[in-house]
Amino acid sequence: MSAIITLTTDFGLTDAYVAAMKGVILSINPEAKLIDICHTIQPQNIYQAAFVLGTAYQFFPQLTIHMVVVDPGVGTERRAIILRTASADFVAPDNGVLSYVIQQSSARSVEGKIDRQLVELEPELEAVAITKPQFWRSPVSSTFHGRDIFAPVAARLSLGFPPRDFGEAVTSITMLPLPHPYRAPDGTLVGHVLHIDSFGNMITNIKGDDLPQLGQVITAEVGDQLISGLSRTYAEGKGLLALIGSSGCLEVSLKEGNAAALLNAEIGSEVRIRQQS
Amino acid sequence: MSAIITLTTDFGLTDAYVAAMKGVILSINPEAKLIDICHTIQPQNIYQAAFVLGTAYQFFPQLTIHMVVVDPGVGTERRAIILRTASADFVAPDNGVLSYVIQQSSARSVEGKIDRQLVELEPELEAVAITKPQFWRSPVSSTFHGRDIFAPVAARLSLGFPPRDFGEAVTSITMLPLPHPYRAPDGTLVGHVLHIDSFGNMITNIKGDDLPQLGQVITAEVGDQLISGLSRTYAEGKGLLALIGSSGCLEVSLKEGNAAALLNAEIGSEVRIRQQS
Amino acid sequence: MSAIITLTTDFGLTDAYVAAMKGVILSINPEAKLIDICHTIQPQNIYQAAFVLGTAYQFFPQLTIHMVVVDPGVGTERRAIILRTASADFVAPDNGVLSYVIQQSSARSVEGKIDRQLVELEPELEAVAITKPQFWRSPVSSTFHGRDIFAPVAARLSLGFPPRDFGEAVTSITMLPLPHPYRAPDGTLVGHVLHIDSFGNMITNIKGDDLPQLGQVITAEVGDQLISGLSRTYAEGKGLLALIGSSGCLEVSLKEGNAAALLNAEIGSEVRIRQQS
Repeated sequence: MSAIITLTTDFGLTDAYVAAMKGVILSINPEAKLIDICHTIQPQNIYQAAFVLGTAYQFFPQLTIHMVVVDPGVGTERRAIILRTASADFVAPDNGVLSYVIQQSSARSVEGKIDRQLVELEPELEAVAITKPQFWRSPVSSTFHGRDIFAPVAARLSLGFPPRDFGEAVTSITMLPLPHPYRAPDGTLVGHVLHIDSFGNMITNIKGDDLPQLGQVITAEVGDQLISGLSRTYAEGKGLLALIGSSGCLEVSLKEGNAAALLNAEIGSEVRIRQQS
Repeated sequence: MSAIITLTTDFGLTDAYVAAMKGVILSINPEAKLIDICHTIQPQNIYQAAFVLGTAYQFFPQLTIHMVVVDPGVGTERRAIILRTASADFVAPDNGVLSYVIQQSSARSVEGKIDRQLVELEPELEAVAITKPQFWRSPVSSTFHGRDIFAPVAARLSLGFPPRDFGEAVTSITMLPLPHPYRAPDGTLVGHVLHIDSFGNMITNIKGDDLPQLGQVITAEVGDQLISGLSRTYAEGKGLLALIGSSGCLEVSLKEGNAAALLNAEIGSEVRIRQQS
Repeated sequence: MSAIITLTTDFGLTDAYVAAMKGVILSINPEAKLIDICHTIQPQNIYQAAFVLGTAYQFFPQLTIHMVVVDPGVGTERRAIILRTASADFVAPDNGVLSYVIQQSSARSVEGKIDRQLVELEPELEAVAITKPQFWRSPVSSTFHGRDIFAPVAARLSLGFPPRDFGEAVTSITMLPLPHPYRAPDGTLVGHVLHIDSFGNMITNIKGDDLPQLGQVITAEVGDQLISGLSRTYAEGKGLLALIGSSGCLEVSLKEGNAAALLNAEIGSEVRIRQQS
């Protein structure tokens, strides 16, 4: 079975940067199966990269290697890491792009830690700082670690080299301050927009399970707009609608339009859920 | 030999949706070879999806599986189908996206049927409604059948499962009202624009065989513009030109420009061919 | 080991053209591993295609086959060629898209020849004009040699057919007039912008080795803007900066912005380096 290596970058589709990384990987493991997750992350947008990766990685086979190169600090002192979870390996800068992976792979919730940058890892997660240069390309370009460090490391991981061959174990990792929904004193559930997809759907951190039982009616409030009730599909209703999207979370959507643009919403915007009396 | 699975969607390139489907497929058949046909179909544009698929599928090896997820009716009562032709399998919503495939795979012309939505299939074409949930992901998201139904079905087809394992045979399928060229009383051949490619080339339903013999001179009329004669390549002539494109059909093109934008043309626009006296 | 075939085109991502070529290749060699280098070369921009290919191909394994279809002269008398270097095969129109490959693969510099279009090849480079139609698709569309000629030729090369099976040897090949840096009478090093990447970074033909020793201070002059000193990473400094990029050449970059847009720069723009006194 060929090893699968996925790639998530902000390199765009117009330059040779992604192809150079693929060439480096295939030069080391010609049998690697390369799958693009996304190369059009907004330049240096770590939140978007973390969300896109967090939504995609869980559908890949066990032992897949996920490489992320959204790396505004390339060439500075920021660490590069390998994270090994029960389901996959990740090769990435230690800048928060693995936040959703860590949240979803940890036995206990990391909710209490979200204000801190550097978070202690659960013992079931193994992490290594990539520090041993013998597997890197040489010389290393200070502007393109994706090609010269991440790609050769991912390729060798796919050949079965253990993470510890690439550097020393670390026990903490950088987490983004991911907001969690909370209950306001008046009973309103307050969530936040985590991601806006390319259709303008606003994906929130409110899980379907957080909502009242089916059959009960809710009102979603975004800015000064009210949406009554939950739709089941994008094809139902008209205008603005709220539904449980494919990530299992509440989405605000505009039929045949762009909800985020209409509502002037951005990552972090509040969505408030009230149960109708 | 690895099974080939192609993907045609309107998901764009910026989200994790395509990657999630690829992960699901590779989790079931790690040896599948995944080929992107197009992910930038205009949202919910079934005509464009049908044309792009119809132009591409015929160049793939026998037994390729083509998956199409341009699916405005996702989550509603619209059927999902498997179509097996002599050359390939197709997994798609039953909304017309397979119209060109059916037209090209049928022994007799389906011209007479183009006003009807639901068309009887030729006996050489096998179709199945995807109704048996045991092969789907569970729970099925009502907004993302591509990931939860189409992808696992395509992956299992690629492992050799027969179409009938996924549901009951159906004998009719939805066809788009594809226009056909006709001869006006004055002898003019009236065709229509089927597709506008990303260069602005207007691809019509007038086949090279429908035109007068080479050597005879024609005039193509689009709106109030006249184009005299057929060019052989995009590099010939200047300004607007007409040629037989790579699909075997008449195209209207603008040298170093966008013909469709200049002519304000859209899918369905008329192109009239007169033989010069 | 599967043969690797890369693709570089100006076909964009919205049409079926790239997929049709992939289908043709896989119909001949189902085991080929297809890697996209870039499909969003600006239409017919041979300079951009040459640079993108020249930056990417060197990272791929030995024996990779690189196919380039940026071909404004398709269907005219322009030649199609196979170029075999010590590291790889190239299948392309003979219009200059292989200029950087030839420059980098030649034992002696081709600097002296840059004003001429047709350049004698070094004896270590083998080139063949693709003239034997028995391996082409038939009929050949005069507008899509990528599908009907280049793809089947690349696929058969990947099966081990020697270049000479496809046509007669040629000893010269078309080169773009690539500018080289020169030293002005006052000691200023005058280079040119070879490429503008999608971030707006301006990549010049001034190699890191051409610059004064590290530790000495330089000033880069672009239009009427002066940049003092070399940065090591994109994260350093602010505003406009100059650094040695991942291609080993001097780049002009704008922190959190688009340098080329700010400076109104284009391919060929001058960048002047002075050593500070």
